[in-house]
Amino acid sequence: MRHIIFGESHGSAIGVVLEGVPAGLELDMEGIRAQLARRATGKNSLSTARKEKDEVQVLSGVFEGKTTGAPLTMVIANGDQHSSDYEAIRYTPRPSHGDYAGYVKSGGCLDYRGGGHFSGRLTAPLAAAGTVARQILAERGIWVGAHISSIYGICDAALEDVEDLQAVADKEFPVLDDAKGEEMRQAILEAKSEMDSVGGAIECAVVGLPAGLGGPDFGCNVEGIFAQHLFAVPAVKGVDFGAGVALSLMRGSEANDPFAVRDGRIVTATNHAGGINGGITNGMPVTFEVTMRPTPSIALPQRSVDLRTGEETEITVKGRHDPCIVHRAVPVIEAAAALAACTVLGI
Amino acid sequence: MRHIIFGESHGSAIGVVLEGVPAGLELDMEGIRAQLARRATGKNSLSTARKEKDEVQVLSGVFEGKTTGAPLTMVIANGDQHSSDYEAIRYTPRPSHGDYAGYVKSGGCLDYRGGGHFSGRLTAPLAAAGTVARQILAERGIWVGAHISSIYGICDAALEDVEDLQAVADKEFPVLDDAKGEEMRQAILEAKSEMDSVGGAIECAVVGLPAGLGGPDFGCNVEGIFAQHLFAVPAVKGVDFGAGVALSLMRGSEANDPFAVRDGRIVTATNHAGGINGGITNGMPVTFEVTMRPTPSIALPQRSVDLRTGEETEITVKGRHDPCIVHRAVPVIEAAAALAACTVLGI
Amino acid sequence: MRHIIFGESHGSAIGVVLEGVPAGLELDMEGIRAQLARRATGKNSLSTARKEKDEVQVLSGVFEGKTTGAPLTMVIANGDQHSSDYEAIRYTPRPSHGDYAGYVKSGGCLDYRGGGHFSGRLTAPLAAAGTVARQILAERGIWVGAHISSIYGICDAALEDVEDLQAVADKEFPVLDDAKGEEMRQAILEAKSEMDSVGGAIECAVVGLPAGLGGPDFGCNVEGIFAQHLFAVPAVKGVDFGAGVALSLMRGSEANDPFAVRDGRIVTATNHAGGINGGITNGMPVTFEVTMRPTPSIALPQRSVDLRTGEETEITVKGRHDPCIVHRAVPVIEAAAALAACTVLGI
Amino acid sequence: MRHIIFGESHGSAIGVVLEGVPAGLELDMEGIRAQLARRATGKNSLSTARKEKDEVQVLSGVFEGKTTGAPLTMVIANGDQHSSDYEAIRYTPRPSHGDYAGYVKSGGCLDYRGGGHFSGRLTAPLAAAGTVARQILAERGIWVGAHISSIYGICDAALEDVEDLQAVADKEFPVLDDAKGEEMRQAILEAKSEMDSVGGAIECAVVGLPAGLGGPDFGCNVEGIFAQHLFAVPAVKGVDFGAGVALSLMRGSEANDPFAVRDGRIVTATNHAGGINGGITNGMPVTFEVTMRPTPSIALPQRSVDLRTGEETEITVKGRHDPCIVHRAVPVIEAAAALAACTVLGI
Repeated sequence: MRHIIFGESHGSAIGVVLEGVPAGLELDMEGIRAQLARRATGKNSLSTARKEKDEVQVLSGVFEGKTTGAPLTMVIANGDQHSSDYEAIRYTPRPSHGDYAGYVKSGGCLDYRGGGHFSGRLTAPLAAAGTVARQILAERGIWVGAHISSIYGICDAALEDVEDLQAVADKEFPVLDDAKGEEMRQAILEAKSEMDSVGGAIECAVVGLPAGLGGPDFGCNVEGIFAQHLFAVPAVKGVDFGAGVALSLMRGSEANDPFAVRDGRIVTATNHAGGINGGITNGMPVTFEVTMRPTPSIALPQRSVDLRTGEETEITVKGRHDPCIVHRAVPVIEAAAALAACTVLGI
Repeated sequence: MRHIIFGESHGSAIGVVLEGVPAGLELDMEGIRAQLARRATGKNSLSTARKEKDEVQVLSGVFEGKTTGAPLTMVIANGDQHSSDYEAIRYTPRPSHGDYAGYVKSGGCLDYRGGGHFSGRLTAPLAAAGTVARQILAERGIWVGAHISSIYGICDAALEDVEDLQAVADKEFPVLDDAKGEEMRQAILEAKSEMDSVGGAIECAVVGLPAGLGGPDFGCNVEGIFAQHLFAVPAVKGVDFGAGVALSLMRGSEANDPFAVRDGRIVTATNHAGGINGGITNGMPVTFEVTMRPTPSIALPQRSVDLRTGEETEITVKGRHDPCIVHRAVPVIEAAAALAACTVLGI
Repeated sequence: MRHIIFGESHGSAIGVVLEGVPAGLELDMEGIRAQLARRATGKNSLSTARKEKDEVQVLSGVFEGKTTGAPLTMVIANGDQHSSDYEAIRYTPRPSHGDYAGYVKSGGCLDYRGGGHFSGRLTAPLAAAGTVARQILAERGIWVGAHISSIYGICDAALEDVEDLQAVADKEFPVLDDAKGEEMRQAILEAKSEMDSVGGAIECAVVGLPAGLGGPDFGCNVEGIFAQHLFAVPAVKGVDFGAGVALSLMRGSEANDPFAVRDGRIVTATNHAGGINGGITNGMPVTFEVTMRPTPSIALPQRSVDLRTGEETEITVKGRHDPCIVHRAVPVIEAAAALAACTVLGI
Repeated sequence: MRHIIFGESHGSAIGVVLEGVPAGLELDMEGIRAQLARRATGKNSLSTARKEKDEVQVLSGVFEGKTTGAPLTMVIANGDQHSSDYEAIRYTPRPSHGDYAGYVKSGGCLDYRGGGHFSGRLTAPLAAAGTVARQILAERGIWVGAHISSIYGICDAALEDVEDLQAVADKEFPVLDDAKGEEMRQAILEAKSEMDSVGGAIECAVVGLPAGLGGPDFGCNVEGIFAQHLFAVPAVKGVDFGAGVALSLMRGSEANDPFAVRDGRIVTATNHAGGINGGITNGMPVTFEVTMRPTPSIALPQRSVDLRTGEETEITVKGRHDPCIVHRAVPVIEAAAALAACTVLGI
């Protein structure tokens, strides 16, 4: 299964083509809508005011409600655009956005409005594609869950039991500990009031993958496959499996996961390896944490350069700002993980 | 350029085939030997006692000292094997090694001796391939450097200036601050004396990549390309770009890299993004840190399972142990980064 | 550059996503419409009566008339569908169509109406994508031309000079010799009157590719790249380069193309190799002939099997039949060749 | 499964790395030797006098006689080289060889001795890899057979029953009709005596592939997959499926393969489509014919160009010539077909 995400923030539509979807899958439109709603903006004070309706239209690949195996195309029309807000950034790139890098790459021919093809809005078709992947996984007894592990240094409760992630999926603010979630919200609102934004991290688990998938080599390595999908999500700057960066502080005797037998099944007593040894699944949940940088769109004035004159200048971006995208990114990370899991399964 | 690493720790040889190497490159055999020497074991008390000679034989792709553009094959014969040491692990997998996952994947048909194809020894051909990649980069004014950023929590000096990495390449123990390096060595020797091992982290920079390479999408995203190469290095469990996990603690106003003009060139005043915005290079050094788990091979008894009986058991692995591989992995991480940089350049 | 063609004959729309299109290309909508008109049906008595309007809508990847380098999506809405005509084939596959093979592949979940995703109608987005490829080639002085080389055994004049193909592009019936074209038309009409169809062949040339592209190995071999694109065109059953099947009848002294110097440029006096030696372009036009089987849709009763009962039965397909698609396939073959040429160029 | 063929005719060794071989396959070294013997030269008066021993050494991927799933590397040392014979062609390319195209591609840095990486000798590792693929197919009840369908216009008997191909495999000169084979031999010897060479064609069948594999789209199309593998075989200039070029002469009513039921299985009464409809297998044998150009190495003087001076010149190539490679190419075409069939099966 491979996919291409297409569209621009202020173009006519965004969408995705999924090639290689197994035939006979009853497409869960309700599920797709639910995931899109989870990542949509405009619902509350925590995100940008852009109202996203995100009605999905299936253009191809489905017949009588079921996938046919032919390329599956889903399109979401754009709306509520304030393109004029972005005139200022055409030749004055916003720091840490794709504006400048994209300008160089395209020789100046990029759609700068609202970030164009670099927009976080492009995570909507990714979430839709991920829902299809999750359906495929569900048929094999595999599920994906995630929670906000931290925002601006405020950490959610530690994930003791991956099953706890199932309950989190229905929350508007997906944390294990709602009190911590409330602190996070306050941090977001505080940043917002100061025209700033905050970063965070998301912890994700793929539960039910059988042992023996993947390989140690470049191209089939499970960590590499997941990382490739995850880094394609805007704002992701780090991917750490299992105990993650803490492994650098450990001794082998602490880090090693002893084998054990539970209900006749070989498991590991701990899961510091995040379910992967030698690039291959070991039957334990595949777990990882992604680091998400703060939204670069802030309302404060920032230093930039005028690309026409090559001179330093200041930019203050008007329009709608998103003080934090971590909570809304949870279904997107799950979507990327689900697509990665399908690749690992050879789908 | 694509590569396949082949061989097993206790087979007749290990090696690599590199396809798509540009023609006309004067192959730097001296440089290859130097990189292999940096990662070789047996030189001092810090690593396993296995004596690796690592003589590289070029089987194909080079004529009159220059690459021809045809597949370049390099082979390193194996030697100094103590295969009998590994009989015990045939059906009793070592915790956090690829033994069990590989056993399941291969239906029991894996070469278990010394880790077989999962062995850290396979990083030798990777280092050789990486040297070819570095030559290609050098012709374009691009270089790769790295240092040990931490071992068992002991941190090297912060990297203020990427140019400092050039001096580190000649050190047997590649740190910026040799006093910190000495502390790290002590930590390794202490772990060794307790039959244990330690983890650490490596910080790496690719300097000189032009702006405008890569793309936001899956498959061409620069972070994704680097991550795919880096996770194929044994022991790597995390890859974090730029300021890395610290970005989750930041506000946008801190994390954003303001644009500036230096010597008529557009740069960013800071480089928290690690030289990548929107999946595209922005002309700043591409920087990242990889987390390396402790070597799973330790001499302490550990809990395992007998794969024949399905019963829990204990395993004590005899033979040579490597209390830390972080210092030796530095040239390997550089090699993986160089191969990734070639991909990003479209080579 | 890679592409995915999507859609079904009787779905809401068909289209294509092109990834990796160079930025800054002024999209030639007029050219796209012209190519779609060349391959459209319903214009005259030679093809099916389905009226295809084929209005192309660009959904993404173009800003202010120029490509941005982001995925380029083109969509063509469907219309004039007579879906009920196809109820009979749901469980009774038409001989030599994709009906049965597709039924097995999809476990019965395919859109059988009008051939679904297997429909010749899917060549419309391919022609559109090919026009983009041709624009990219034109900027490099490369062009693609083709003519009907035969229909039902009636052969067009031999192609003495590839430049002659430029004049053929404007013809409704693209042959070098219009008298032969008239004979071909008669053969088509005769077959049509007998409720039958006819096959043929198309000869194509890509002119202007520089020498030195491609390679002998699997994956980069020029013949292999072209063939992969050409066989993805419905009805193509053979691809033969240069002198083609006649090479099997030759001696080396006849087949070999002697080198010569013309205007200071190294050329070959003949071009039996079709511009490719050792899998690499030699600077001569890349030439090949594709064999197109007769349209399998005929109005005569044919032997089939009822997929529900597993019993032999007869099928007479109602609705619109296309007695020959060779003339309409000319722009499609050119499109596939242009996409292949872009791949060979590394675009 | 993917492979890289490496080596040069006059280098130290040639070989292949196969990635993705299923684990647990008992490697049939005898079978590999047998296939290598079929394609080896020097056995009789029909081929070049170069004595090829072709001893295969397995460098990796096999343990205790079975594949491990790790990359499988097979190497064949070179010998009996007369490199000095080739000094004349260093700057004077042989017509219709890869010499000139390769020279341009490599900027002059190619191993010109004996064709270097372009040599027909590289078909030895391909035959070895193909034998592994055939073993994998055999476990699934699939086999590959081929015969010389024509040499210099002398045609073998028509293939009425694909089962007849099984008997041909043991023949030194693989034809159905030995009398025709004798005529072919005479044609070869006659060409040889006139210092010339002859072309021909090979017909191949893959028997036992289940229906429902592949797809209509670029990249998964069965014809495209086979063609990509076949065109990577040196000397192949055309690939035609089923009835092949004859389809261009047919009417739909002749070409269409009526469905029928035999022993409770859906089959087609004829197989003009070569077992593929809409890019998908239909359960019938996949059949195709490849056109092989005459060996370009002939002993007659030929027109060429001196690459140093850019002036026309004459070349007479000394050394060993192969008046025909078609008979020796039969196992190579089978090997390529077997590798293609594995791809189609998703192996």
